[in-house]
Amino acid sequence: MEQKLIFTNLVGKALDQLVASLGNPSVFTVTDMQIAQIVLPILKEQSTAVSGGTDIKIPTGEINKTLDTVQLVWQKLQEAGATRNAVIVNLGGGVVTDLGSFAASTFKRGMKFINIPTTLLGAVDASLGGKTGINFNGYKNDIGTFSEPEATIISTGFFVTLPQQQLLSGYAEMLKHALLESKDELNKLLNYSVVYPTFNADALLPLIESNVMVKSRIVTEDFTEQGPRKALNLGHTAGHAFESMALERNSPIPHGYAVAQGLVVSLILSHLKCGFSSDILHTFAKYVRSNYGAFAIDCDDYPRLLNYMHHDKKNDNPDTVAFTLLADVGDARINQQLTDAEITSALDIYRDLMGI
Amino acid sequence: MEQKLIFTNLVGKALDQLVASLGNPSVFTVTDMQIAQIVLPILKEQSTAVSGGTDIKIPTGEINKTLDTVQLVWQKLQEAGATRNAVIVNLGGGVVTDLGSFAASTFKRGMKFINIPTTLLGAVDASLGGKTGINFNGYKNDIGTFSEPEATIISTGFFVTLPQQQLLSGYAEMLKHALLESKDELNKLLNYSVVYPTFNADALLPLIESNVMVKSRIVTEDFTEQGPRKALNLGHTAGHAFESMALERNSPIPHGYAVAQGLVVSLILSHLKCGFSSDILHTFAKYVRSNYGAFAIDCDDYPRLLNYMHHDKKNDNPDTVAFTLLADVGDARINQQLTDAEITSALDIYRDLMGI
Repeated sequence: MEQKLIFTNLVGKALDQLVASLGNPSVFTVTDMQIAQIVLPILKEQSTAVSGGTDIKIPTGEINKTLDTVQLVWQKLQEAGATRNAVIVNLGGGVVTDLGSFAASTFKRGMKFINIPTTLLGAVDASLGGKTGINFNGYKNDIGTFSEPEATIISTGFFVTLPQQQLLSGYAEMLKHALLESKDELNKLLNYSVVYPTFNADALLPLIESNVMVKSRIVTEDFTEQGPRKALNLGHTAGHAFESMALERNSPIPHGYAVAQGLVVSLILSHLKCGFSSDILHTFAKYVRSNYGAFAIDCDDYPRLLNYMHHDKKNDNPDTVAFTLLADVGDARINQQLTDAEITSALDIYRDLMGI
Repeated sequence: MEQKLIFTNLVGKALDQLVASLGNPSVFTVTDMQIAQIVLPILKEQSTAVSGGTDIKIPTGEINKTLDTVQLVWQKLQEAGATRNAVIVNLGGGVVTDLGSFAASTFKRGMKFINIPTTLLGAVDASLGGKTGINFNGYKNDIGTFSEPEATIISTGFFVTLPQQQLLSGYAEMLKHALLESKDELNKLLNYSVVYPTFNADALLPLIESNVMVKSRIVTEDFTEQGPRKALNLGHTAGHAFESMALERNSPIPHGYAVAQGLVVSLILSHLKCGFSSDILHTFAKYVRSNYGAFAIDCDDYPRLLNYMHHDKKNDNPDTVAFTLLADVGDARINQQLTDAEITSALDIYRDLMGI
């Protein structure tokens, strides 16, 4: 399954060319209320396709990633007389691109759509893999389709308005991809800083480009998520547990922060079980500690963390927890079954490395 | 796009083999309340996959082909803990197969599904072409996907419980396919009677098999409905106008009856514009007249009929009406633009042939 990715900081121009290449269909731009204020006006100045098209604004936030919001999009499309030949431009973070893509893939049995992620996480993660979807009855992304956008336009131009936390959160996914790819890729990221005021948006674009290609290759190899794509779960087993615990403590942490911490735990387990380099583990842990801080846990938290890991939806063995581990940077080992004792050791080492 | 069609009167056996070949996943059978009473108990006796699975019953009828009903299916799937590996068996008419397929194609980004049409129309029409969908805000099939079932199991065994009107209605679509195929195919149908008590269900199965293959070939050639698939619109332009007028008169006629009348109008126009055989036109009109009766119109109805035709969603020229016509049986000419004067002549001849 091919996926067209366009890396550019001239978004409007790229979009207008793309729309022209589709025969200048009607354009419907789906954004949320926040993006509509901050980013949409900038894009309208750059793109006649968007300024001459119809805006569909949806309420902001994960809580609105629902069927009600999809119905709102479908209804606006009907009211504007959208045909199957019209094109939807999804401009926003993961909620907008997931939901807008789902609406497009089901309206009149499938319209074309173009994604323009406005967050770093969206650029490296949500806009790839053809996953569209919404939450349903409290289950995340339970309703959706596999549908590829015509293209995803990735630009760092919009990122200068992002809060620090969001940048770091997206960067954690990039670190994960680099770990799955090569030492070269990893070193590039560990030598770059996404922290204000040092943060340089232009220098980030080529880093994203090579990074996204990593995910693109993995996803292309495994479109329906049976094998290698599971490697993308790296860091997420412990990460989800940290995320759930933070939520339980009523002080939620961004997903990417949890992933960064989870990656450290994965590398520790990789070292213990698969001979992953101790040097790289230490360098990586130091980078995470200085940029993301540590997620504070003590040994009283272990039983609940283990419990979260056992109940991960991707786990099918009741006695062990399945992790994706690394024998080396770029050499993933999926479905590694770990015992509670092994995970407990890793958590001890995690606390030691992170100074907690 | 390949489509697995199984023609058999041993439905349960075929289904159980199919489910076994998928690795015996959990089975969810979607039916409506009516089918659940009449057909489901019979299928349960024949199939351990169905009797050992979970039933999902939806309210009966086109009026319930809505997002609310889809939500009911999704919710039942969630409650029963259905995974992406489970399989849905859609047992019913067009509403059940369209809606159940849509629910399957969007639950967890796509489950496998198997269609078992219980109506003749469903067997020859709705279960082919990968079209799934529901009505939305009064627009028919406006929300849906293109998703192929694992297989469609076609049997005439369930048809002996169908009302006469439904049998004739489905048979009209078969007549349409035969007209698009060959004189041989057409003659087989004109020499068979779907009218009780003559109706012989076993003799119908091979007729459906060769007939469905006609549609299958056309749809396979043109999966996303750009070119040749438009030929399947034969008879529908005038047919839809008759159907709308009947609705306006508060005495709706079955879709297939309207199509049968519409086919007569198409053949008249085909004779006038494309040299279609007068003999075949007369034979066909006689068959329709004796089995379906005539749709009563007089010349005062012409302006409204023309108006309906001009507003057909598949029409894009304001001055003419686009018809699919035939130069001969099996030789379709799509996008024939006809003037009001030409259509009016055809309606005059229609009234003459049908004795009204």
